[in-house]
Amino acid sequence: MSEFFKNIPKIKYEGPKSDNPLAFKFYNPDEVIGGKTMKEHLRFSVAYWHTLQGRGSDPFGLDGTAIRPWDNITDPMDLARAKVDAIFEFCEKLDVPFFCFHDRDIAPEADNLRETNRRLDEIVARIKDRMKDSNVKLLWGTTNAFGHRRFTHGAATSNNAAVFAYAAAQVKKAMEITKELGGQNYVFWGGREGYETLLNTDMKLELDNFARFLRMAVDYKKEIGFDGQLLIEPKPKEPTKHQYDFDAATVIGFLKMHGLDKDFKLNIEANHATLAGHTFQHDLRVARIHDMLGSIDANQGDLLLGWDTDQFPTNIYETTLAMMEVIKMGGFTKGGLNFDAKVRRGSFEPVDLFYGHIAGMDAFALGFKVAYKIVQDGIFDKFIEERYASFRTGIGKDIVEGKVGFKELEAYVLEHGEPEITSGRQEMLEAILNQYILGVR
Amino acid sequence: MSEFFKNIPKIKYEGPKSDNPLAFKFYNPDEVIGGKTMKEHLRFSVAYWHTLQGRGSDPFGLDGTAIRPWDNITDPMDLARAKVDAIFEFCEKLDVPFFCFHDRDIAPEADNLRETNRRLDEIVARIKDRMKDSNVKLLWGTTNAFGHRRFTHGAATSNNAAVFAYAAAQVKKAMEITKELGGQNYVFWGGREGYETLLNTDMKLELDNFARFLRMAVDYKKEIGFDGQLLIEPKPKEPTKHQYDFDAATVIGFLKMHGLDKDFKLNIEANHATLAGHTFQHDLRVARIHDMLGSIDANQGDLLLGWDTDQFPTNIYETTLAMMEVIKMGGFTKGGLNFDAKVRRGSFEPVDLFYGHIAGMDAFALGFKVAYKIVQDGIFDKFIEERYASFRTGIGKDIVEGKVGFKELEAYVLEHGEPEITSGRQEMLEAILNQYILGVR
Amino acid sequence: MSEFFKNIPKIKYEGPKSDNPLAFKFYNPDEVIGGKTMKEHLRFSVAYWHTLQGRGSDPFGLDGTAIRPWDNITDPMDLARAKVDAIFEFCEKLDVPFFCFHDRDIAPEADNLRETNRRLDEIVARIKDRMKDSNVKLLWGTTNAFGHRRFTHGAATSNNAAVFAYAAAQVKKAMEITKELGGQNYVFWGGREGYETLLNTDMKLELDNFARFLRMAVDYKKEIGFDGQLLIEPKPKEPTKHQYDFDAATVIGFLKMHGLDKDFKLNIEANHATLAGHTFQHDLRVARIHDMLGSIDANQGDLLLGWDTDQFPTNIYETTLAMMEVIKMGGFTKGGLNFDAKVRRGSFEPVDLFYGHIAGMDAFALGFKVAYKIVQDGIFDKFIEERYASFRTGIGKDIVEGKVGFKELEAYVLEHGEPEITSGRQEMLEAILNQYILGVR
Amino acid sequence: MSEFFKNIPKIKYEGPKSDNPLAFKFYNPDEVIGGKTMKEHLRFSVAYWHTLQGRGSDPFGLDGTAIRPWDNITDPMDLARAKVDAIFEFCEKLDVPFFCFHDRDIAPEADNLRETNRRLDEIVARIKDRMKDSNVKLLWGTTNAFGHRRFTHGAATSNNAAVFAYAAAQVKKAMEITKELGGQNYVFWGGREGYETLLNTDMKLELDNFARFLRMAVDYKKEIGFDGQLLIEPKPKEPTKHQYDFDAATVIGFLKMHGLDKDFKLNIEANHATLAGHTFQHDLRVARIHDMLGSIDANQGDLLLGWDTDQFPTNIYETTLAMMEVIKMGGFTKGGLNFDAKVRRGSFEPVDLFYGHIAGMDAFALGFKVAYKIVQDGIFDKFIEERYASFRTGIGKDIVEGKVGFKELEAYVLEHGEPEITSGRQEMLEAILNQYILGVR
Repeated sequence: MSEFFKNIPKIKYEGPKSDNPLAFKFYNPDEVIGGKTMKEHLRFSVAYWHTLQGRGSDPFGLDGTAIRPWDNITDPMDLARAKVDAIFEFCEKLDVPFFCFHDRDIAPEADNLRETNRRLDEIVARIKDRMKDSNVKLLWGTTNAFGHRRFTHGAATSNNAAVFAYAAAQVKKAMEITKELGGQNYVFWGGREGYETLLNTDMKLELDNFARFLRMAVDYKKEIGFDGQLLIEPKPKEPTKHQYDFDAATVIGFLKMHGLDKDFKLNIEANHATLAGHTFQHDLRVARIHDMLGSIDANQGDLLLGWDTDQFPTNIYETTLAMMEVIKMGGFTKGGLNFDAKVRRGSFEPVDLFYGHIAGMDAFALGFKVAYKIVQDGIFDKFIEERYASFRTGIGKDIVEGKVGFKELEAYVLEHGEPEITSGRQEMLEAILNQYILGVR
Repeated sequence: MSEFFKNIPKIKYEGPKSDNPLAFKFYNPDEVIGGKTMKEHLRFSVAYWHTLQGRGSDPFGLDGTAIRPWDNITDPMDLARAKVDAIFEFCEKLDVPFFCFHDRDIAPEADNLRETNRRLDEIVARIKDRMKDSNVKLLWGTTNAFGHRRFTHGAATSNNAAVFAYAAAQVKKAMEITKELGGQNYVFWGGREGYETLLNTDMKLELDNFARFLRMAVDYKKEIGFDGQLLIEPKPKEPTKHQYDFDAATVIGFLKMHGLDKDFKLNIEANHATLAGHTFQHDLRVARIHDMLGSIDANQGDLLLGWDTDQFPTNIYETTLAMMEVIKMGGFTKGGLNFDAKVRRGSFEPVDLFYGHIAGMDAFALGFKVAYKIVQDGIFDKFIEERYASFRTGIGKDIVEGKVGFKELEAYVLEHGEPEITSGRQEMLEAILNQYILGVR
Repeated sequence: MSEFFKNIPKIKYEGPKSDNPLAFKFYNPDEVIGGKTMKEHLRFSVAYWHTLQGRGSDPFGLDGTAIRPWDNITDPMDLARAKVDAIFEFCEKLDVPFFCFHDRDIAPEADNLRETNRRLDEIVARIKDRMKDSNVKLLWGTTNAFGHRRFTHGAATSNNAAVFAYAAAQVKKAMEITKELGGQNYVFWGGREGYETLLNTDMKLELDNFARFLRMAVDYKKEIGFDGQLLIEPKPKEPTKHQYDFDAATVIGFLKMHGLDKDFKLNIEANHATLAGHTFQHDLRVARIHDMLGSIDANQGDLLLGWDTDQFPTNIYETTLAMMEVIKMGGFTKGGLNFDAKVRRGSFEPVDLFYGHIAGMDAFALGFKVAYKIVQDGIFDKFIEERYASFRTGIGKDIVEGKVGFKELEAYVLEHGEPEITSGRQEMLEAILNQYILGVR
Repeated sequence: MSEFFKNIPKIKYEGPKSDNPLAFKFYNPDEVIGGKTMKEHLRFSVAYWHTLQGRGSDPFGLDGTAIRPWDNITDPMDLARAKVDAIFEFCEKLDVPFFCFHDRDIAPEADNLRETNRRLDEIVARIKDRMKDSNVKLLWGTTNAFGHRRFTHGAATSNNAAVFAYAAAQVKKAMEITKELGGQNYVFWGGREGYETLLNTDMKLELDNFARFLRMAVDYKKEIGFDGQLLIEPKPKEPTKHQYDFDAATVIGFLKMHGLDKDFKLNIEANHATLAGHTFQHDLRVARIHDMLGSIDANQGDLLLGWDTDQFPTNIYETTLAMMEVIKMGGFTKGGLNFDAKVRRGSFEPVDLFYGHIAGMDAFALGFKVAYKIVQDGIFDKFIEERYASFRTGIGKDIVEGKVGFKELEAYVLEHGEPEITSGRQEMLEAILNQYILGVR
């Protein structure tokens, strides 16, 4: 078993005043809050694709910039084997309890599916073996049904039935290996499920096929007894002009329409929400109130840029508001905070992988603590409770209970006249939020 | 009965070569295509609010710039009476068969609902009287539940039950007068149904209340025997930070979730679609394939600006692609093309109202003709049919018919290997579209 | 002299732990840092237009929502007189040392310029009188050359010479009264200086006229001996399709081209920078390194919305990064932090005006303290110094000193081969910034 | 000499009614308009990078999809040689008179600069040789100073002097070979000239270095007697967070500030203008009125997507308005219309390269004809002339001639009172534009 990050020590909690960039300042994995450790609350996960596979490439620099300790390994399967060691070493040094992968991240695709699957089996066996001595687990698995050219026109929504079949075969295997490795969820990200131009697109057939595909996945899950949670990850556009899983509301509506809403939850990604024109909190809230918030891809975008920057999350406002939604739903069950985040192209050294994850873990740990205190104190909750009080008595209660219609409500207005409204106090609430974030409340 | 636009003649069709700016070049109302006149196909409508009420104001020029022939009338009810004459004159001169209004457009709000409704009744009687001698009809009515300060925090989604009641009373009356005037649809636009900040918002209660409100509307519609179509108009944001009726997919999902999808269709507005990050055609397509496309608010936005510019639609690409969706659904039944469009602040003279409508009517008339030919010729349809042919035989047919699952599909791949894919031909299709638009096909 | 905000006490500093929403938590006006009080560092200013004139209107609710203690005053000049009392009371209660106005904010426009100016003179005299007993001063004045319909097609860039003249007459008077009141700057905001469509626009003439106008302003400033700083405030679009003063770089380039750069500096507004596609810090930086940063309009936008929301600034990241630029330029001289910010439509009570300003003042006070510490510690500066070290010796020094050209540089490469580059450490730097903001460094 | 596109005939003009997708419908290269052939007016150019090098890759599909006739060639230099044949064959079959390249497009980079340059020399000799028998010429050359990892932090604006030197060495060679091949322009595109985060950036040094670099280029150009035009191509962001050459106005201002404006013109790209928040026409107009419009990168973006889609230009509105600016500047001299456009990932067959170029050439040819007629007819010009007439007599003339100041203008207003303004007639003008585009005027 190789050690790749030899110069990097195990990352420890050193308290907020530490100026060691290779230490946690806010994330104390073992600190107990509300009966659970921080580690249990936050359920961090490392993304195989960005951290092990990412090369720092971009559309104007396809070759990438990354320097990685495994760069000298040339045989693809040797490299895949090496990275199994690397992911465990990386997670263990950062005290991260989970990782996530696409099938093609862990083993390179071969010329045909049979051989591709054989390679997968070999690597999966290696991972499983490595798991025996480690506390690191699989948060979720998925298939990569967007990178290969066969998926140019879609996977489950391809115009070509043979491509649909290929995607099905990939998901089948990916679900099997996720189960084999004890994965707690299985994720669908429809990178190519959408269209480039409506001029050549049968949107109805594509959407119907998408539903058929998801139904097959549900059936197969039951057949093999996989007890993980199925998740769909919304994203509005990029790489395609339009992706069907546009945002939380769209996906939830689609699932309900096709009777699939009991079988899926959502994996909300911060940068995907903002590309859809929503705040991260908005999409989390939409998912939560429909009881469909499953897991989170923790990153952040640049709201002045129109593509998926997948930056490490460092904005405390975002992490606080996100964790408020998680706490409100009772915390994660099978889900977690997966760092679907990549170091910048300019941060190409191995140590930057650690800096990025430490920055993100600290930001979410602090966000969790702030959110926890906010929820405990109940200041915002109380404000909201009072603000909507009119729906708990009188005419408001009648409305909620379905006892009145337009005629009764008109009569009410004719009798009571103009309603009195109250200020929403947004500025005051934002100031209070600042005080919580800055630790003075 | 006053004539307000004395210098403006009845607008006539003078053929494409006319250089009379007060003539139609492409819109020949009586031209018969496919067994119906252009007028019947397009079902144009004038918006009372922009054309009669619009003042050319903007956030940095609240006072407006408009010069209108009724500017000398000072009494609000006299003005309201005058505008009844004006709308008929305007529609008749433009040969527009319909108009649309908000209740508050046609009669000014009074100090209390009873008096407000009395004013409405008076004006409605006047309109009804005027209708006897005119072919101009009401396409749809609606209520303005966003302008008054009582709706600051929402109408059906207000935090205040008395405001909910007020909105209900307004819709009740607005639906009654729409029925009284033979309106063919009733529209809901949730200008304030959304939130400014999640810090003070109970999103779940608000959405549930919204559904309750819509259900009451359905009930009341049945009660009074109004046989118009109920329509919801999506819009993503503005004036609020977030509006619940974000886009077609969101609204359709919401309606299905609450069992309301049989009772509503959508009124799709071009500029609202683009503000939501979609093309106009996209939102029309989404509505159409769910059998929920009811009517259209015909305008265009400026994709480089982030607010609702409500420009008159002159882009032939947009009008062509929009009309393709309308033709594909079999044409309008109760819906139509309502010009929810306003002349620019700089186009403040009365004649500009005519220029704007002529520009829009010509653009849609030509778009309809182009689209009609495209659909007749079937070039795009045939391309799509061939592109998806694999779903009509063999494994594709099995997929569509639900006869196969992941295991059968994996077996198929193992047997057949890598799928062959074909080019989507976007550039060629775009060139063909140009040829249709330019009239050389 | 009336007291309008009778129930609002003078706002005091109560320390960060205070939970009194009508107290400062971070802004201690008298605290001395680096030899100056906080009040002197921050030079806060209240905007007459938002705070005294704002009605909470928006494009879908022109009537506004605001409840103000002067709402019972109906005569426009009585109202103008009352607001003089109100601005002083407001600033004094908040310990804000400055205010800013447009001419039309302080006195209503009359039917002709002579009478308009007479009204101005009366109110200016009243303000001047009130200033005798108060520490509150005028940060800057300006004219409103965008609201009146005469400015529909521009002011200095109108197509109409008489409008140009009118704008000149307004600026003349506005500069005079700014001088009369000891204003420290005079601001140009070209709300209508731009175009709606290039189809009717002579951009070259308009830009040349704009330069002519600014030159006249410089001349007149000298003529009357006004020693305030002239400022231009960039803004990309809204209300017009395009405004010529697009962003800091555009304005600086324009001024240099026309030889006006010695006579003007910039007034950078956060929300205008972001609407132009830049961060607030970017536009401040651009202005600063060209030695043209004059003053700041302190607010914040919503990056998911495409219009000027003018929210009170509460984001500590933004205030910290902004104050870093201010500190780096040696602090404000004539400029300051003017709250060009309005309470939300939903925050319509008088007390919300206080909440908003307190929130903003606290956010900037804390941002200043964090920035001050960052600059003192020099961590980022040192990082940057090392990062660019190669330009202080050897070939880099030669480049900077202009001693080498392409041939020498090619020779250098042929001799030295591939450069070694180092990581930019963005993630680590962002984590350090967080630690400063959160007060743990 | 290999023929690669064996099944593709030479593309001919077949007139607008042709339904042969491999024929021009609007572009008749030999048609004479205003004394020059269409070919001379439009000066089309093929981009080596997209058409020869493009693989159909995107951020979620790095491997690409393209099928190319040279895919069987594995040796990089053999491939480079083959592509020389291919570019001439391609241009000749399309009757395109020009091509453009980055140095690294035509020859692969080696391990060191000396060998890289040797490879370049070999390929340049081959191109030169091929030019003897061909009418195809080089419109412009450039260097790729953005793809290699050495340019991660910039080229001329790198923090590392050795990288600056490397960029200089590359430009030196690229300018030499451009001269050698008779290139008519040399282009600078600062893909990495910008920053990722201001936290680690010395913006002032970077901008000063950028000016130094450009000055060296001017010097070297003179030294070697290269008489081509130097061009800078603006772009706002992507791949970096911010690129210094943000838009036309920014670049022009920068050049003026550094005394470089006589030595450079601009290469305006449609999709870059729109990413900066401007229309294509806007940036062309800005460049033109400053006498700095040199050449055009002809493509189009998707205004609903936030990245550089580089689509083939098919929107007739855009091509018409662009050609109006070109005609207004007197036509191209050294510049031309370079198709910086790539077929969609889904259009991966060789024939799609032809479809894309035909679509673009037809769109610009028609746009040119429409624009030519518009300019000939002078309708818009006359409208503008009348609209600004007040600046040619009386007070307006005095303003333009600098004879009046604020005092005289105030006196004018006091005497003349309120200006009368006229409608801007945007809707009417847009309708007229439609009539020209649709060929009915």
